[in-house]
Amino acid sequence: MDSALQLDNLRIVLVRSRNPLNIGAAARAMANFGISTLRVVHPFERAFREARSAVGAASVLECAEEFSSVADAVADCALVVGTTAVRERELQQSLHLLAEGAPLIRESLANSPVALLFGSEKTGLSKADLAFCHFLIHIPTRELQISMNLGQAVAVCLYEIARTRSTTLPSQSAHAADSELERMHSVLFDSLLESGYVKPKTEVDISGKVRLLIRRLSLNPDDADLLTGMFKKILYKLRHK
Amino acid sequence: MDSALQLDNLRIVLVRSRNPLNIGAAARAMANFGISTLRVVHPFERAFREARSAVGAASVLECAEEFSSVADAVADCALVVGTTAVRERELQQSLHLLAEGAPLIRESLANSPVALLFGSEKTGLSKADLAFCHFLIHIPTRELQISMNLGQAVAVCLYEIARTRSTTLPSQSAHAADSELERMHSVLFDSLLESGYVKPKTEVDISGKVRLLIRRLSLNPDDADLLTGMFKKILYKLRHK
Repeated sequence: MDSALQLDNLRIVLVRSRNPLNIGAAARAMANFGISTLRVVHPFERAFREARSAVGAASVLECAEEFSSVADAVADCALVVGTTAVRERELQQSLHLLAEGAPLIRESLANSPVALLFGSEKTGLSKADLAFCHFLIHIPTRELQISMNLGQAVAVCLYEIARTRSTTLPSQSAHAADSELERMHSVLFDSLLESGYVKPKTEVDISGKVRLLIRRLSLNPDDADLLTGMFKKILYKLRHK
Repeated sequence: MDSALQLDNLRIVLVRSRNPLNIGAAARAMANFGISTLRVVHPFERAFREARSAVGAASVLECAEEFSSVADAVADCALVVGTTAVRERELQQSLHLLAEGAPLIRESLANSPVALLFGSEKTGLSKADLAFCHFLIHIPTRELQISMNLGQAVAVCLYEIARTRSTTLPSQSAHAADSELERMHSVLFDSLLESGYVKPKTEVDISGKVRLLIRRLSLNPDDADLLTGMFKKILYKLRHK
């Protein structure tokens, strides 16, 4: 795991965003993935004001900085990466799939600030915006509907860039010990004998099948206990009819 | 690349969604990643109606089916996977990070329908909903803001599940041929000589440095042409002052 991932160095730059919901959604995704520097370039004034008053992701939006040009917004960045939905446009830079571009971004983040640019909802990044970019990344979408919603595109990009961050999940409940499974096997098999399901000729064969079946269930101790208790009850009933 | 990826088998199930924008956003992400079967369980009636009248992703929403229970919505599915933001809740099933769960989902999709469940914006999936799930997946977010927007969570999950689908990017413009680069080297180096930048003692040394520098630029043929033309002009001027 990449424990040195420097997400503090990442600047999300929204260029000419029109929709306050999208600015808010971008900020929320940033909060989800631990990125705090949001920069907006020429946002529709009302959109930016409304986004700031939206609930959630408040701290990201409160600290958002407004710039009057892409040049100013990326001035401190050693790497500038643009996002584009368009695959056919005559591009002046190299274009990477997001999954290929993310490692390059992570590498740069280790040493210096990196800007990730998102264009307006209608037109994406302009040629003039793209001229600031060292390379472009593309989220692989279908030909029929290539353009993603801005907030969703930000979420997917940040998910991919942050994906190497080590995350620990709570330890799952352990598997039942083999002795517990054997206890279950014994009770279930006796029940099958009692029920007449197992005939003397097939006894060994079925015993093995039941043993394997129980292993395939991947039971935790509690469930093994529970099932064994049920089978015990059934076996008792079978024997004491 | 997983060319056999059967995304047609994937059913996105939104349980008790409250916000029409989120239902619409989920549908748009589905259209982006090529998934067409949307099922809604007990949506807020108005939310579903409003989402259907939203622009974009129209065909996914038009074909969306409404169910009155999770049981009915997943009845045809051989694998049911729940999504959860919560890591601490006492979970009855195994919990995988999205990146670990996605391969399991892809494997099942090859043979049979798979349901991916998303709970309501407020409360997520209920205990009763979770009881239908074979396992749960979790998008790794930060402790401070673990809960993602519904539309963004759907987008990230679908991005990850579809990530092995082969996607071809347009071939980048080829690199300039070495002969072109040598032509540029010759003109630039001569300019440096004319300018006095290169002294007789450092001639060989700098020639090599310029050669390497030009290679590091990874120029395409057009740019090599352009730069060579510029240097030619400069050289001419230097020689004909």
